[in-house]
Amino acid sequence: MNNWFTEFWTNHIKFSIRIKEHLFSQQTPFQKLDFYDSYELGRFFTLDDIMMANEKDEFIYHEMMIHFPMTVNPKITNVLVIGGGDGGSVRELCRYSSIKAITMVEIDEIVVRKAQELLPQTAHKLSDPRVKLIFADGCQFVRDTKEQYDLIVIDSTDPIGPGEGLFSREFYQNCAKILKPEGIVVNQHESPYFEQTRIEMMRAHEKLRSIFATATVYQAFIPTYPSGHWLFGFASNTQKPQSINGSKELIDSFNLKYYNHEIHLASLVLPNYVKDLLKK
Amino acid sequence: MNNWFTEFWTNHIKFSIRIKEHLFSQQTPFQKLDFYDSYELGRFFTLDDIMMANEKDEFIYHEMMIHFPMTVNPKITNVLVIGGGDGGSVRELCRYSSIKAITMVEIDEIVVRKAQELLPQTAHKLSDPRVKLIFADGCQFVRDTKEQYDLIVIDSTDPIGPGEGLFSREFYQNCAKILKPEGIVVNQHESPYFEQTRIEMMRAHEKLRSIFATATVYQAFIPTYPSGHWLFGFASNTQKPQSINGSKELIDSFNLKYYNHEIHLASLVLPNYVKDLLKK
Repeated sequence: MNNWFTEFWTNHIKFSIRIKEHLFSQQTPFQKLDFYDSYELGRFFTLDDIMMANEKDEFIYHEMMIHFPMTVNPKITNVLVIGGGDGGSVRELCRYSSIKAITMVEIDEIVVRKAQELLPQTAHKLSDPRVKLIFADGCQFVRDTKEQYDLIVIDSTDPIGPGEGLFSREFYQNCAKILKPEGIVVNQHESPYFEQTRIEMMRAHEKLRSIFATATVYQAFIPTYPSGHWLFGFASNTQKPQSINGSKELIDSFNLKYYNHEIHLASLVLPNYVKDLLKK
Repeated sequence: MNNWFTEFWTNHIKFSIRIKEHLFSQQTPFQKLDFYDSYELGRFFTLDDIMMANEKDEFIYHEMMIHFPMTVNPKITNVLVIGGGDGGSVRELCRYSSIKAITMVEIDEIVVRKAQELLPQTAHKLSDPRVKLIFADGCQFVRDTKEQYDLIVIDSTDPIGPGEGLFSREFYQNCAKILKPEGIVVNQHESPYFEQTRIEMMRAHEKLRSIFATATVYQAFIPTYPSGHWLFGFASNTQKPQSINGSKELIDSFNLKYYNHEIHLASLVLPNYVKDLLKK
C-alpha cells in the first residue's frame, strides 16, 4: 500500500505520513475531521487536513501544556479547558488528585466522540467523574460563565476556522475576567520558525502581554507540528513561569516521558531570534 | 513551477521542499551532490539526497556546534574540523581572533568548491588565512597526524556512505589520542526521535562514553533535519559541558541568531525519554 497523508507546513514545504488505513472522514458542522492509522506515528487525527494529535508524540504536547502550569501553582483545583477535543490535556490533568473539577468546553462533539472511539490513548480520561463536558463555543462560554478558574487551558487549533476566536483579544480579556487572582492561562502558541505561524505567534503574544501582568512563552520539540519547534503561552497576573512550586516526588511518580522540572526551566530559554521576535 | 525535492526521514515519513531551480548535480567519487534554490529555505545542498545545509536554518546547526565548545574552553587555539565541507563550522570558528589555526579535513573537494561557488553564506570564510584545507579521509588523517588539537569538530554526514567511519570506535579512539589534555571533541550526533537515527545516536554515545571521561549530548531545534530535534555530542577528559568560561561580552558582540549562554545550559537539559535512551 502506498498511500500518504500530506500536510502543507507552508506553501512550499510538505510533511507526508504513509498511512495504513483511513479510519474515518466527516465534514462536521465546524470542520473536516479525519482519523488515520499510520506506520510511523500510529493512529492520528486531523482537522481541515492539519495534524492534531498522534499516538507517537502527543505526550510531548500534552505533558508540556499541563505539567508546566501545575508545577507553578500546585494549588490549582478548578480547571477550564477550551478545545482539547482529543482529551489529552484532560488525561494529564486527571493525574492530580488535588484537582477537583475540570470543565472542558469543546465546540465539536463529533471530535470528542470519535476520539473516544478511535484514539483512547488520549481520550480515556474524559469519563473521569471530575470532568464536565460542554459542547459549545469557547468564546461564548468565557463571555457568559459566572464561574472563576485557577487554570484556563486554551488547547486550540490554529487561528483559522473554528479556532480563530480563541486567538482574539476579546477572548483573552474574558479569560482574564474569569481567572482567580492566582490563576494561570496557558495556550497553544504556534511556532516561531515558518512565516505564517510566526506572525500568529507574535500577534498572540502581543495581545496576552497587553492583558496580563506576566506573559511569556515556553517551547518543546514536537516533531509532527510544522518545524518541530513549538511554543506554549503562559500568562498570569500573579504567578511567575519560572517558579517551581510543585513537588518533585509527585512529578516523578507520574513517570512522564518528556516533562521534568529541569525541562520546565530550560523550556523558557529561547534562541536569540525567538527573543527578538517577541520584542517586536 | 511545481518541482519538489523530497527526503525520506524514515521509510514512512517524507519531507518535501518546493524548488525554484536545480542548480547542480554530480556523482562525485564519494557521493551524489546536489545544489538547489528553493522558495522557503533559499539555497540548499544535499548529499545522497539528504539535506546538509540551507540558507534559512544552517545558523542553528553551526552556531551550536562551535560556540558551545568555545564557551567551555575559550583558550582553544588549534582546531581540527573533520568534514564540514560547506564551511559553516569554519565560519563560526573564524569569529574568534584567539583561534590561531584551523585544519579542515574534508574527503570530497567537490563539495567544498561548489559550496564556495553556490553557497557563499556558509563557505565564505574558507579563504581565511588561518584555515588549512586538506582533502583526505578524516579517519586516516586522525590515525596518522602527529599534531595535537584543542578542539576536534566532527561535522559529518549520517553514518552511512562516506560518513560511516566518522562514527566508529577506532576513529573516536584516534581523536582521543590527538586531543590535548584540556581538549574537547564535539560531533553531529543524530536525533533521538525516529528509530534509525535513534539507534545511531545511542551507539555513538555508548562509544564516546567508553573512551572519554565525560561524554554527553546537547540539543537544538533544527527544523530541516529529521524530526527537528537534533543532538550534538560533547566529549572531553577534563572539561565539563556546563562550564561557561567564555565571555558574555564576546558572545554578544557576535550578534548570533540562536546561541547564547542561557541556551548553552538549557541545551543540556534533556526530555525524560532521551535521558532514558542514553542510559541504555
